Amino acid sequence: MSTQETADSPAARDADQRRQRGREAFRDVMTVDPPEDSSPATDVLLEGVFAEVWTRPALRRRDRRFVTLACVADADVEQEIVEHVYAALNSGDVTITEMREAVLHFAVYAGWPKASRFDGIVDKQWERIHRERGIPVPAREPLLPLTTASDPEARLAGGEQSFRDINCLAFSPNRDNPFQGAGILNFVFGEMWLRPGLGMKERRLITLACVAFQDAPTPILSHVYAALASREVSFTEMDELIRHIAVYCGWPKASHLNHAVTEVKPRVLAEWQTEHAPTGQEQP
Amino acid sequence: MSTQETADSPAARDADQRRQRGREAFRDVMTVDPPEDSSPATDVLLEGVFAEVWTRPALRRRDRRFVTLACVADADVEQEIVEHVYAALNSGDVTITEMREAVLHFAVYAGWPKASRFDGIVDKQWERIHRERGIPVPAREPLLPLTTASDPEARLAGGEQSFRDINCLAFSPNRDNPFQGAGILNFVFGEMWLRPGLGMKERRLITLACVAFQDAPTPILSHVYAALASREVSFTEMDELIRHIAVYCGWPKASHLNHAVTEVKPRVLAEWQTEHAPTGQEQP
Amino acid sequence: MSTQETADSPAARDADQRRQRGREAFRDVMTVDPPEDSSPATDVLLEGVFAEVWTRPALRRRDRRFVTLACVADADVEQEIVEHVYAALNSGDVTITEMREAVLHFAVYAGWPKASRFDGIVDKQWERIHRERGIPVPAREPLLPLTTASDPEARLAGGEQSFRDINCLAFSPNRDNPFQGAGILNFVFGEMWLRPGLGMKERRLITLACVAFQDAPTPILSHVYAALASREVSFTEMDELIRHIAVYCGWPKASHLNHAVTEVKPRVLAEWQTEHAPTGQEQP
Repeated sequence: MSTQETADSPAARDADQRRQRGREAFRDVMTVDPPEDSSPATDVLLEGVFAEVWTRPALRRRDRRFVTLACVADADVEQEIVEHVYAALNSGDVTITEMREAVLHFAVYAGWPKASRFDGIVDKQWERIHRERGIPVPAREPLLPLTTASDPEARLAGGEQSFRDINCLAFSPNRDNPFQGAGILNFVFGEMWLRPGLGMKERRLITLACVAFQDAPTPILSHVYAALASREVSFTEMDELIRHIAVYCGWPKASHLNHAVTEVKPRVLAEWQTEHAPTGQEQP
Repeated sequence: MSTQETADSPAARDADQRRQRGREAFRDVMTVDPPEDSSPATDVLLEGVFAEVWTRPALRRRDRRFVTLACVADADVEQEIVEHVYAALNSGDVTITEMREAVLHFAVYAGWPKASRFDGIVDKQWERIHRERGIPVPAREPLLPLTTASDPEARLAGGEQSFRDINCLAFSPNRDNPFQGAGILNFVFGEMWLRPGLGMKERRLITLACVAFQDAPTPILSHVYAALASREVSFTEMDELIRHIAVYCGWPKASHLNHAVTEVKPRVLAEWQTEHAPTGQEQP
Repeated sequence: MSTQETADSPAARDADQRRQRGREAFRDVMTVDPPEDSSPATDVLLEGVFAEVWTRPALRRRDRRFVTLACVADADVEQEIVEHVYAALNSGDVTITEMREAVLHFAVYAGWPKASRFDGIVDKQWERIHRERGIPVPAREPLLPLTTASDPEARLAGGEQSFRDINCLAFSPNRDNPFQGAGILNFVFGEMWLRPGLGMKERRLITLACVAFQDAPTPILSHVYAALASREVSFTEMDELIRHIAVYCGWPKASHLNHAVTEVKPRVLAEWQTEHAPTGQEQP
């Protein structure tokens, strides 16, 4: 804001409106009142984060929740994790089953120590919501039976199939390698991605946030490719995801994700072109 | 931007002006032309990062460079490190001596591996600038002689003194501990912080960016406290730093830094109050 | 402090000797020649990292390798991962079986995207070593059969037992939670930690490096406690680990780890005191 602006200038009115929009979006998303102070941090929060990002329609509020949860859990900031877990559950946008699966999915892509904190916060916020509502916390769903095969050979074969399906690839990795075999095929694709309770799109959004945060070069390309090629995340949603990541992980990570999307896009479009019956449902 | 806006509406004119301001700030800071495309990532870059953050006067452009260099080196995004190292040196804002010291300082606060990449990029961009200008790369400054004592007891004593001075504390840690003694006292405060070639304020800005990014709980409090208590970073600059960190490290890290500042501020103000002659030069 | 030092002063001779010791340690650890330039970064590398850290006897060179591999893989710096993977295998300090298990263990504690890059680098460096030696790359060890139970109930029961044993705790977490049940009990403690091919101490060192890097509050306390309580990492080694982490992850992370050790130490010592026959084998 320029120092020449007066309280009723058009620019000041715009700023007021933006702040008001930010306050409403904050209340809507976070399910509590926005902060009232006028610190620079509150300015950024209400004007930059809520007025400008959460209100954009190209990515649904519910979808933004999964991205945000992964970002704040990755960023290690307790208070932000608490507030977003509470808001996601309290709004009803995310069920407790989805939230618990999101923690497991996040554990795989961001590491168990961060997931451990996330998990503890989910328990506490779930209790808090029931305490606030004066109702008992419902019993947990039993873990067993699992829906995937128990036999190691069958698990590996299932993992190889789901690796190809989920990554939109014609091959799966060499199983005779602990990381690829015991980890990726046996557990990550042989069980974790296949668990009921969390949709494929939600799993992709969490994964995209995690690979954007970590920026290891190959996984970001493969997961951006698979999210787009599967049509589970549209090009428009991916562009919006870049904006959301800019706010929650910082511009450098958004820039890196943008490079990955730019690199992958022509390949996805070329593959769609060669499919005999183009669906036309996606206008990238 | 609402879908009802037309090209010549006030809102559209504001957006145009903001974009133009972003393009100018980009050219000014980065010393190259801004990107011309209209992708969401470029929108964020020109409007969010350059028009809204780099143009704000409360933190000088040169100061923002040290913060940004630490953020992009921490965020691991090669392209961003390359562009900001080039721009800092090419603009003349940062000398090669300062840049090389910044790498060393960063190594201490962000770890050797990330600093190693940063260092390699500095060498390449320094050569590139000289190649572009058609002049030879000047000889490196010799490392020796060092300005600090060689005798281990004298080094430790010097480290203890500078630990107290730089951290604005009345005590120094137990030296009979490899981390505290051989690391903190002997090297970090006994030598590194005391090296000529980079100012104390610049060292504080790099450190603040690193502790904000890493968010280990105690160092963020101690370095925020010392930067403010020493008056080397003003409260206004610290607020502006929070905004800059929001853009380069993401909102959660900025929020965490903001909490640290909020926690430390009353203590700093109370200490200033009790000083016999309040300077009044600082309006927090 | 002596700015008058000349090239043949005692201080200059000390610095020369330190540098020479760094060069020798570098060659010894990295299995290649040290860099020859005189930048501050090379100065830190040879004097701070190699002369001062790798030569310290309190943590074995082989142990330092597992810590370092986790740190550089966490820090995402390709060149450092390449050099340390090559050096660990080329020196013979770490077998390919151990290295591949280390990648899987790291995947769990640092996230699969980072592990994916680490895994790719292990394959390439293993090939490079065999190409340099003019011998064929040996066949991979088959993944199957696994050594752990296939039946889900038996796996969970095994996971609960190993969770208690490895964490030195009397309880195990609620299995009816995807993160705890399907993740921690079924896979992490029900299979991953129990895989042959990597020792328990090595697994602890990798885990400690990862929790220090991530600094989620509870896991760092629980893994520091278990490493010390199990006597698999001595207090002296832990102190030395802090120093090593300082160099490879930066001082804020080391400071946080140091706080965790300080918090946990009295509890471990008190527990040892109450054991009926003190072993006396540990002098913390």
